[in-house]
Order: sequence, then C-alpha cells, then structure tokens
Amino acid sequence: MNSKANHGVIKPICWQGDHLQLLDQRLLPLEEHYLVVRSAAEVAGAIHDMVVRGAPAIGIAAAYGVALAARAGDDLNTALSVLEASRPTAVNLHWALARMRQKISAGADPAALLSEAKAIHAEDLAMNHRMGDLGAALFTKPVSVLTHCNTGALATGGHGTALGVIRTAHALGRLKQVYAGETRPWLQGSRLTAWELQKEGIPAQLITDSAAASLMARAAVDWVIVGADRVAANGDVANKIGTYSLAVLARHHGVKFMVVAPGTTVDLTTANGSEIPIEERSSRELTEFRGQATAPAGFPALNPVFDVTPATLVDVLVTDRGVIHKPDAASVAELMKQDTAS
Amino acid sequence: MNSKANHGVIKPICWQGDHLQLLDQRLLPLEEHYLVVRSAAEVAGAIHDMVVRGAPAIGIAAAYGVALAARAGDDLNTALSVLEASRPTAVNLHWALARMRQKISAGADPAALLSEAKAIHAEDLAMNHRMGDLGAALFTKPVSVLTHCNTGALATGGHGTALGVIRTAHALGRLKQVYAGETRPWLQGSRLTAWELQKEGIPAQLITDSAAASLMARAAVDWVIVGADRVAANGDVANKIGTYSLAVLARHHGVKFMVVAPGTTVDLTTANGSEIPIEERSSRELTEFRGQATAPAGFPALNPVFDVTPATLVDVLVTDRGVIHKPDAASVAELMKQDTAS
Repeated sequence: MNSKANHGVIKPICWQGDHLQLLDQRLLPLEEHYLVVRSAAEVAGAIHDMVVRGAPAIGIAAAYGVALAARAGDDLNTALSVLEASRPTAVNLHWALARMRQKISAGADPAALLSEAKAIHAEDLAMNHRMGDLGAALFTKPVSVLTHCNTGALATGGHGTALGVIRTAHALGRLKQVYAGETRPWLQGSRLTAWELQKEGIPAQLITDSAAASLMARAAVDWVIVGADRVAANGDVANKIGTYSLAVLARHHGVKFMVVAPGTTVDLTTANGSEIPIEERSSRELTEFRGQATAPAGFPALNPVFDVTPATLVDVLVTDRGVIHKPDAASVAELMKQDTAS
Repeated sequence: MNSKANHGVIKPICWQGDHLQLLDQRLLPLEEHYLVVRSAAEVAGAIHDMVVRGAPAIGIAAAYGVALAARAGDDLNTALSVLEASRPTAVNLHWALARMRQKISAGADPAALLSEAKAIHAEDLAMNHRMGDLGAALFTKPVSVLTHCNTGALATGGHGTALGVIRTAHALGRLKQVYAGETRPWLQGSRLTAWELQKEGIPAQLITDSAAASLMARAAVDWVIVGADRVAANGDVANKIGTYSLAVLARHHGVKFMVVAPGTTVDLTTANGSEIPIEERSSRELTEFRGQATAPAGFPALNPVFDVTPATLVDVLVTDRGVIHKPDAASVAELMKQDTAS
C-alpha cells in the first residue's frame, strides 16, 4: 500500500499511529513518495530493497518493525530473525534488535515496545546533533569538504552523521563548499545528498567519484567526511564502497579524513575490519539504470557495496561519546566506556 | 543522414568510397549504428559530441575530415580550424591535423589527402599491434589487470592501446582476468570496453570506479593498464578522469601502473602536465542519464573529464617506439628520437 505525504523537514521514517511510513529513497529525487508498512516482514523487505537505507535509519526502522509485530500479535522471534537477515554490514541493525530483544525478555507489552522504538529514533537524532557540534568544532576556519554516499537526515533519525557535521558547520559559518561524490552504483550522493544539500541551501557541487583525486591534487579539499556502517574494535571502518579509496587519496594528499558515527555503529565484538561481512548486491546495479541496459547483455559485474578503511587512515573518529584522534583498539575501548556526551 | 552497417571486426571509422561512416559510440552497446558524415564540419561535430572518441580515433577521424573538405572543394584552412577546435585535451588531433597541413602545404590534391588519412589510420593499427607485443612481453606470468575508460578498437585505428596490450596478453595466454572500471560519467568502461571484451571472449568483470581500491587491497590486481590523451615532455600523463586516482591507489598498494600510448600522443611542446588543457563537459553528464534526472533539478556539478597523472606514478610507458620504465624528461626525449619499432 502506498500513500503520498509532504513534510516540511526531511523525515524518512514516520510512525503514524498504527503503522510506519517510509520515504521511498529509491524514487528520490524524482518523487517524494511514502510507502506504508504494517509488518516486520514488510519492514525487512523495505530495508533489503533500500526503500530505507543508512546504518542508523536501518536500526530505527527495524525497531519499529518489532513494534509492528508486537501490535499484530506476530511471533516476535520470527520477526527478529527476519529483520536481522535484511542486510549484513551495518551493525546498528543488530544493536537496535538486541535492544528490542532485551525489552521483550523483560516482558514489555506492545505499547512499551513502540515506546522503545520511538526512544531509539529520538536518541539517534540527539546523538547526531551532538556529533554535529563535536565535528564542526574541529574546523578553526571555513573549510571545503568532500563527502560520499548519503549520511544525512535520510540515513538517520534526522540531521545526519557526516552530513550532520556539514549541516552544523554551515550553520556556524565554518563551511565554504561541499563536494558530493555521486556514489555509484546507487547514486546516494546525486539523488539523496544533493537533495538534502539543495533543501538546506548549502553551497555544493556534485562530482564523479573518480574526480576526488584531482580535486585533492589542486588543494580544493580540506576534509573528507564520511559516515560508517560498522566500526570494529580496533577502529577499522566499514562504509560505502569508495570510502577506502577516498581515505588512501586523502592520506596521499595531506587531506584530513573524518569518520562520523554514533556509538551504536561501534561493534566491540568485531575485532577488526577483516571480520566485517561485506554485502555484495546484484550486478544489475551496474549493468542497468532504471531498467535500461548500460552494459552488454550478460556481462558480469562485481558489486561489493562496502569497503573497509583501516584505522590507520582515519584522522578523527567523531561519535556522540566524544572525539578520538588516530583511533586504535585502546582509544575505541576507552570511548565505549563513556556515556553519550551531553 | 544515417545508415545501418554490420562488420565482423570492430571498425569505428570506415571510409566508404566517397564518405565516412562513424560507429555512433553514444548508442553502444544498445545499438550498432553508423552515422554517415560528408564534411569536415560534420566530422568536427561528431568528435565534439563523442560519436567518435579516444585520442587516436579522434586524430584519424579528423584526418578524414580534411580529406572530405578537399573532395568538396571547401576552404581547407577553415576545415583545419573547425577540426582543431573540436576537443581540447587529446594531442593526437593536433598531430594528425599538422600532418595533413604539411601535405596541403606541399600541394597535395584531394586524392593524396585521402591517401594520407588512410595512411594515418593504417599506421595507428600497426602501432597498436606493436604496443600490444611490447606491453604483453612485460608479463612473465598470467596477470589480473584493471583498466579504465575504453582504449580498444573503438578508440583507435584498431586493436587498441591499453586494451591492445590486454588483447595481445590474452592471445598469448598471459591474462587471468580483466576488471573494467565503468568510467563515469560517460560509462566508456560499461558500454564500450565491456562490449569489446565480450566480443573477444576475454574473462572480465565490470566494477564501479570506486571499487578499484578494495580490489587492490585484497591483492586481486597485478597491473593497472590505461591509455593516454596526451603525454607531456616530462612524462606526465593526461587521461580520462579517474586515471590519476588509480595511479595513486596502485602506488599505495604496490600494484604496477602501465600507460600505453603511441608516439603521436607524446607532445614535446607541453613541458609538463600543468600545461595540458583539461576539458570540462556539461554538468548534465552527471545530473541526467538518457534524459532522466539523476540529481535534483538545477543542482550544480563539476565535470572535468580528464586528469593528470605525474610521471613519478607511472611505472612503465609503452609506446610503438619502445618501452620506458619510470619515464622522465630525458627518457621521453630519447624515446622520441626513435622511429616506430618494427
């Protein structure tokens, strides 16, 4: 079932009394269309099909999925399993489901599970504003930044992670210009980040992902700022394919590399990046565009949609719990002992 | 005027008795359609609009453009100027036109100018086979290679430059696998290189440009092999946007970086890469795909379609005149004193 909706601020995930509405990110920027979802299976399908995407947003949507299952009287273990399996790389999904599972074990009723989902949603927004403040505080003069994928309101409970830092920096007059990489194959940069930047009136230009190096060579970029789908215990970062490429290029050119992710993205049970499962999606994301062939019929494509950036290439990790320069296992462990900063 | 044609081998440029046929590379791989061109202005338009592209192919097409002007009794200085201005970065265009201008100055008639264009075409094919042999000889065991853009028969007089080395290596049993970067925004990799590789039955996979780094990190790539639009006197290389990125990534990962280009691509009058004009094409190449929006209306995009790789990142420069390891001004100057090897 579908319904149209219009919101003043960007709200990819809206609880509507008895069901969830998800802004269909496959259709942006052509259409702002909300999909109505009423069950955990429908939420899992929406996550798998990328109606909703972005590590924090996936976690939030999954939590609402559990609440929907509880309201419908569905088996909650089945709901949890179906949601767990919807996408492999982002750890926020597992974190949110673990939190819901804990409430279920403690005997929470459907209303309490819905409250918990709403709390996860609200806390994420608060964490993003906190990270925006912490990240933007690192800029002592107005900066030009390059970002990748979409890490904004669309990917989170609102404001954004990397794009949240960019938003806050813009609000504080510390931003000169954003270069947004288009982010093949799904074009999160062109379709989603550009849409958010345009709505905010933030000065920005779209580039092909492979133009980043030449911009760095002509000193046009001060910072690369990206989000994360999972941060391992040693500080290695899994994020959208192309992030690792930007990290190597940034180091080569003396450009600073910042990762912005809430504590819910840090997974102390994953020792390092080599243990993070990297999702491969359909080769059709490369060989077709909106149903039209972009490559010869049957040509094989390899489509890993995440890569791993070693901690040694990360200059700063900004989380809601604080900022780490040159993250490593010891500093990540110390950080995770902290509460959310306030 | 248009006409359909079918060829056993890939022939992007065909002289047909009294006119030129150009395989319309904008339509591949969906359609194999030849455009009939009958004047220098039409050739210049076809080069500008990328009906024909690839540094050597542009030079060949321009030479035929002069021959067409001579047959029609058009003013040859005007024809030369219009063709000169069709694209700025590739130097083969200027080289081919200089060669035609020399013939004109020596009093060549239309038939002699057509013979000269045919000679430029045939010589390019011969140079490509020679470079294929020289490049493939560098592989002492079967290798996995990554290539960018299209440098094959479609970009040249036949066989190809970088893709010519790959073809020859495949024929000699020295090739394991090709990774073809899709090459945004024009998708020369997906649309053209994949099409050529499929016709030849060469084992290959398409990747997004930004997946190259993670392939290198898992040691899946032995060589990056690319073409060039202009090689400066000091060995700096202008080539398709993203080439410089691959060169930095290759160096970081200990992957060998090979540039394959005929002597006609070397420009001793350009001292170094900073003097090479870098073409910027329409932002619509990023914000639209086949007329459909891929970014919000009016969103600005920056679209430099070439970048410059410093000579220090080039491990091997393969030309028809011989091979240079670690090219620099002295070795490039020495190379250009040689005749085409045979």
